[in-house]
Amino acid sequence: MLTADQQKPGTTRTLLTEKDAGGSVVSTVRRTVLPGGLRVVTEAMAGVRSASIGVWIGVGSRDETPTLSGACHFLEHLLFKGTPQRSALEISASLDAVGGEFNAFTAKEYTCFHARVLDVDLPLAVDVLGDMLSSSTIHPDDVEAEREVILDEIAMHDDDPEDVATNLFAETAWPSSPLGRPIAGTAASISRLTRAQVHRFYRQWYRPEQMVVAVAGNVDHTTVVRQVRKAFAPLLTDRHARPAPPRRAARFKRGAAGSAHTTRPFEQVNVLLGVNAINRTDERRYALGILNAAVGGGPSSRLFQEVREKRGLAYSIYSYANHYTDAGSFCVGAGCLPGKLDDVLSVVREELRAVADEGLTEEELVRGQGQLRGGLVLGLEDSASRMSRIAKAELLYDDLPSIDEVIGRIDAVTLDDVHALARSLFRQPETLVVVGPEQP
Amino acid sequence: MLTADQQKPGTTRTLLTEKDAGGSVVSTVRRTVLPGGLRVVTEAMAGVRSASIGVWIGVGSRDETPTLSGACHFLEHLLFKGTPQRSALEISASLDAVGGEFNAFTAKEYTCFHARVLDVDLPLAVDVLGDMLSSSTIHPDDVEAEREVILDEIAMHDDDPEDVATNLFAETAWPSSPLGRPIAGTAASISRLTRAQVHRFYRQWYRPEQMVVAVAGNVDHTTVVRQVRKAFAPLLTDRHARPAPPRRAARFKRGAAGSAHTTRPFEQVNVLLGVNAINRTDERRYALGILNAAVGGGPSSRLFQEVREKRGLAYSIYSYANHYTDAGSFCVGAGCLPGKLDDVLSVVREELRAVADEGLTEEELVRGQGQLRGGLVLGLEDSASRMSRIAKAELLYDDLPSIDEVIGRIDAVTLDDVHALARSLFRQPETLVVVGPEQP
Repeated sequence: MLTADQQKPGTTRTLLTEKDAGGSVVSTVRRTVLPGGLRVVTEAMAGVRSASIGVWIGVGSRDETPTLSGACHFLEHLLFKGTPQRSALEISASLDAVGGEFNAFTAKEYTCFHARVLDVDLPLAVDVLGDMLSSSTIHPDDVEAEREVILDEIAMHDDDPEDVATNLFAETAWPSSPLGRPIAGTAASISRLTRAQVHRFYRQWYRPEQMVVAVAGNVDHTTVVRQVRKAFAPLLTDRHARPAPPRRAARFKRGAAGSAHTTRPFEQVNVLLGVNAINRTDERRYALGILNAAVGGGPSSRLFQEVREKRGLAYSIYSYANHYTDAGSFCVGAGCLPGKLDDVLSVVREELRAVADEGLTEEELVRGQGQLRGGLVLGLEDSASRMSRIAKAELLYDDLPSIDEVIGRIDAVTLDDVHALARSLFRQPETLVVVGPEQP
Repeated sequence: MLTADQQKPGTTRTLLTEKDAGGSVVSTVRRTVLPGGLRVVTEAMAGVRSASIGVWIGVGSRDETPTLSGACHFLEHLLFKGTPQRSALEISASLDAVGGEFNAFTAKEYTCFHARVLDVDLPLAVDVLGDMLSSSTIHPDDVEAEREVILDEIAMHDDDPEDVATNLFAETAWPSSPLGRPIAGTAASISRLTRAQVHRFYRQWYRPEQMVVAVAGNVDHTTVVRQVRKAFAPLLTDRHARPAPPRRAARFKRGAAGSAHTTRPFEQVNVLLGVNAINRTDERRYALGILNAAVGGGPSSRLFQEVREKRGLAYSIYSYANHYTDAGSFCVGAGCLPGKLDDVLSVVREELRAVADEGLTEEELVRGQGQLRGGLVLGLEDSASRMSRIAKAELLYDDLPSIDEVIGRIDAVTLDDVHALARSLFRQPETLVVVGPEQP
């Protein structure tokens, strides 16, 4: 947690330093606040030649009214269409020309534009991103062309059984809440959005105090700050602005129990069975990570073993947790032939009941801890993962633990912690959605 | 190209050494032949803590008779089901417990089992893979359970519009050839395969002379060779065996022109339009890489700009090349709303004709070269990509150029090279497949 002083434009601070076993520094995380409240967070990594940059904005589909459904994602697309300085072709050609990976995504609570390039090409990436973020034209002709592209993207999601199930789950659990609406909007809402609405959304939300520029790789903090200051200059006018604090909520927003189905002419039936879980900052998230590993987080998990390995009921069987500021769910997903759905659901419910009744075994706890630890360390070899980690710490958590601290939190989880969590999760009524060829 | 002497069991050779600008060694590739003709290729990389291992076998779905269609992929699944030493749970739990990524895939010309782990966990990964590859039980009960899983996997592919189009393209281009059959087989072929057939396929193909063990990351060649020798011991009995040479073919197997469609109740129509291109070892593959980049290889490509950015006709528009030993195609893919199919196809055909007539611009050549160079260097930061590169060099190419040599080949491509290739490719009759809600 940073003090008020550390939020003043002009402040720079070292957040973390990591050393290897021999005492050499392998990573340093630094943070600077620029005018407008724009934050720049960098992680200098030893031994890499790449740099990953992300511009993260604290706005997502849950900030839309029903009329604006899909506006945030529409806007994300439109930022690639040009500025007074660069056409759409010039934007994409600049990073294609250096072999960079360049893309963006919209989530329910944030939006991210990201690139991975060779270290020498970082100034170019900063420049292009700064121009897109601060000076997008949002030309009416581009709005019309991109509307067609998004309607096609929605049709593509409609052809994807897992996407259909994911959207139906959100709609069933959080009806009449922005959390329940699809991120891309609907064909109806996209058809009606006007250029003026999207442009107003841009001006309202793409403000420097809502933004974090995160860079990880072979980078120097001071140099990056100088580049960002230049590229984002049009936004950096207010010397008194402070970074927006992370989104917070007073109470947990419970998802509704119940069931829903959508009939689709697919070969498989796709199912999601979920319960309310925990929000993003809940201390029990490490216990939930271990519970998830044991229930359906990999091939050695109970569900994979019982549903796929022993009974051959489904090719795809897994579990995962979703976290939001004030809500969260734990879901089991499966895709199977329609005649096997009842058996799959019986096994899933039986396994969840068994974990609620008896908890995990010592072996499962130790394996889950190893799985989280190993996955964490393996993931952090990649500059893109490091970039996401420091950006999310700044935008969502207001807390950046060191890798050792995270490992300490994982190792501190006990069988009792996991059992208590399993009891509180798996004795709730379920939210069940089914997408498939016939009525269940 | 290695000499006959270098194929003798017991031979070790350094294939490549890479230095950075300061002259420090950043990577060393070494190769040892073990008894049985098993090859071990390692790349020691500076600055990483992970290790990626792959066991590559020179067998794929094109080695199946029609009766055996899907046997290679079925076998790949069965190797995870247990050995006399380890149950299915023990196999998956061992690598889950250290957070490793562990999986396998089957292609038309090869099969690969791969894992990514922390360096300290590499001995475990070698041990598990050696046991699976050399001593799989293939128990009849497991065959029956896994048959159900694969039938479900096939149903899942049948629900994926792009998978349906890919399979239909192969079937249309290479009818009555193993290249034209789906890798997973069909529901009919999988239902009929017997345990004896799959077991015979295992004994016939999973032989040491067909295998390459490739490891990249923080590894020591001699130590890895010792570990492999122990873990694969049951296979290493023949002191006179030699590694199998790469698959070769005397002449190019042309795909058939024509068109096919499959009516499916999807929202979108998915289309693939392809022509014959070049085989895997053709010298023109670098020119094709640049041609692909300019035609549909990224957001600055002609098709992305014309189809998506300017006209909003499709969300998804791309091109790619497939290479086999004796065949290859260049394909343009698109997913769009049914009413826009004709327009998409007109634009695609017009752009291919323009490239055949006029070639690329100097700017496109330079951008394409930068895209290939940057993508290459960025990709090689990852131990898994390095592992694939050295394995494929051994199994498929019999040639391992240094990164500098590859960059040299990319930079040597001229506008004339690309134009000549475009003319020879895009003036051929097309193979067109359409998957969508109605007859085209």
